[in-house]
Amino acid sequence: MASELFSSIGPVLFQTLSDMAAECGNGNCDAWAARDPSGVLSPYKFNRRAVQSDDVSLRITHCGVCYADVAWTRNILNNSMYPLVPGHEIAGVVTEVGPDVKRIEVGDHVGVGTYVNSCQDCENCNSSLENYCSKGVFTFNGVDTDGTVTKGGYSTHIVVHERYCFKIPDGYPLEKAAPLLCAGITVYTPMMRHNMNQPGKSLGVIGLGGLGHMAVKFGKAFGLKVTVISTSETKRKEAIDLLGADNFMVSSDENQMESLKSSLHFIIDTASGDHPFDPYLSLLKVGGVMALLSFPSEIKVHPANLNLGGRSLSGSVTGGTKDTQEMINFCAANKIYPDIEMIKIDYINEALQRLVDRDVRFRFVIDIENSFK
Amino acid sequence: MASELFSSIGPVLFQTLSDMAAECGNGNCDAWAARDPSGVLSPYKFNRRAVQSDDVSLRITHCGVCYADVAWTRNILNNSMYPLVPGHEIAGVVTEVGPDVKRIEVGDHVGVGTYVNSCQDCENCNSSLENYCSKGVFTFNGVDTDGTVTKGGYSTHIVVHERYCFKIPDGYPLEKAAPLLCAGITVYTPMMRHNMNQPGKSLGVIGLGGLGHMAVKFGKAFGLKVTVISTSETKRKEAIDLLGADNFMVSSDENQMESLKSSLHFIIDTASGDHPFDPYLSLLKVGGVMALLSFPSEIKVHPANLNLGGRSLSGSVTGGTKDTQEMINFCAANKIYPDIEMIKIDYINEALQRLVDRDVRFRFVIDIENSFK
Repeated sequence: MASELFSSIGPVLFQTLSDMAAECGNGNCDAWAARDPSGVLSPYKFNRRAVQSDDVSLRITHCGVCYADVAWTRNILNNSMYPLVPGHEIAGVVTEVGPDVKRIEVGDHVGVGTYVNSCQDCENCNSSLENYCSKGVFTFNGVDTDGTVTKGGYSTHIVVHERYCFKIPDGYPLEKAAPLLCAGITVYTPMMRHNMNQPGKSLGVIGLGGLGHMAVKFGKAFGLKVTVISTSETKRKEAIDLLGADNFMVSSDENQMESLKSSLHFIIDTASGDHPFDPYLSLLKVGGVMALLSFPSEIKVHPANLNLGGRSLSGSVTGGTKDTQEMINFCAANKIYPDIEMIKIDYINEALQRLVDRDVRFRFVIDIENSFK
Repeated sequence: MASELFSSIGPVLFQTLSDMAAECGNGNCDAWAARDPSGVLSPYKFNRRAVQSDDVSLRITHCGVCYADVAWTRNILNNSMYPLVPGHEIAGVVTEVGPDVKRIEVGDHVGVGTYVNSCQDCENCNSSLENYCSKGVFTFNGVDTDGTVTKGGYSTHIVVHERYCFKIPDGYPLEKAAPLLCAGITVYTPMMRHNMNQPGKSLGVIGLGGLGHMAVKFGKAFGLKVTVISTSETKRKEAIDLLGADNFMVSSDENQMESLKSSLHFIIDTASGDHPFDPYLSLLKVGGVMALLSFPSEIKVHPANLNLGGRSLSGSVTGGTKDTQEMINFCAANKIYPDIEMIKIDYINEALQRLVDRDVRFRFVIDIENSFK
């Protein structure tokens, strides 16, 4: 009875003590946190748990900046728990492993993505689709099995069960590896699921941010003919010259869109805001697939745009552990590197605002190891 | 120049003469036609073309009654051309073949479905996806390459290029074969495309009309666990006892729907009217596919219902020639027979109204050969 009582109040007590320690400037982990829905981040200390039997502890060297960091620091989904340490594109070096850890050794370069726990026993977990486990725990602002609120990669180290830790091959730069853990896998998973790795077929990429630019890179690596579709003519040069896209279209230009009708085998839709779907679906050939990776407020489609072309609209969110490791290995083998802008942590508030303003080419990565000296 | 002129006015002239003949009660083909958007059908005579080199002529024995017959006789899409002879679920016996016909012989049992021509040279035609050819010609109310308006199976014979003619194996009853040509292939195509023929997996079937009852039959033949989802409790007995479904749910019962959440691998949506999509999408497991076969006025979906389950919504319309023949052969091999109510042509106006009122179990088939004696 006493142990039951302790196990129920234990985590709460731990969290309370941990928060108190942090407020007092104590704790074993340096970080930056948002304190309220203003989303403004500032220095913060807290305690990471000690390494348990299956855990890996890593010294974080780099953390990518994802739009999720904006959404949760600013409480856009009304479920933010402050202080909130964002960051789920984590790369670093292993400093300690628990006694039962098998795949990973001290000194290994590893990454951690958007989740740090799952039930490990459901149909989805057993199919390496931990990203869809109903008990999955997000890397930040999640409630872990011990009751603590998870804290992300804007911090100096993290302790994670080895299952949610991915090996980064030797020679792959850690700062480039970080964005693979969310942007990379989010794009790679639907591309593989819908067999987009067929040389000679055609891919449309809507939106040219962190996800979109990875879709172009994967598309070219798969041998696809890639057309970037953007709201802004200003992206043409970087789409073609920098990323190697074959073609560029402005979505507001009806003539250009008309010329593209029924011509694409696949579309990757990374557009972050609300947008119509019918004009894009009509660009697909018969049997074409449009993979939706973002969260507009609503999807409206005329059924003829699906039925009369035998087309599919398919959703997706990040990817499972097997796909994530495969994607990282694919990037290393094919020399696919995200294009990044490195920043120090003290620039993060400006960076998040620039992300909102779509002023980044194409992913901010925080140089964690040189930010907390 | 003269020949160009003739080739441009020739078909119009032919159509005019043909219409005049019909108005005078002449012509080589007996039929029933709608004359105006009231949709009321009455006896009508017109001329079918003579058999050309690649043509097959068949004496129609049976014709299924599809909701499309209602839609076009009543001018619901505002493109009906009267007099309009509906019917695109045609079964009969070959009476004549052109000199270049290879696959089909006089005396063969054959079927004709929803289209009677296509360009025969595009990417879709070359992939046996003639149903998606942009120059495809519908079996009725279509404009054929010779400029004539096509007339469907509520008639005593039809002349068709052999490509659009399917062999019905010996012993398969012609009256049962007729509904395969639209209802059967419309359901079979997406089931095969999305790999629904995996024994042990689970299928939801929304709506239990002509298409829905075929989806249950195919599902059981594929070894699936089939759940029928209907708006009406009255369909329970026929779903389970008559069609062999494993499970039955009423869509308005929130508890029943809740119990089905995230449990289905596949859904075939045959619901004819407007209906919400989110409650059904949420029934799919991770990675599940919902195949839409009907034409609601709009599809509205919350993106989370696609993204957070990795789910797909996929459209489809009828099927190509290869799939159609394969489906007919599959039905014959597996003794899959549509459940039909046989009628004579003079009952067609009542039948069409009963179809609108959803009062049919599960497909009307017109006994053409005994209607025009």
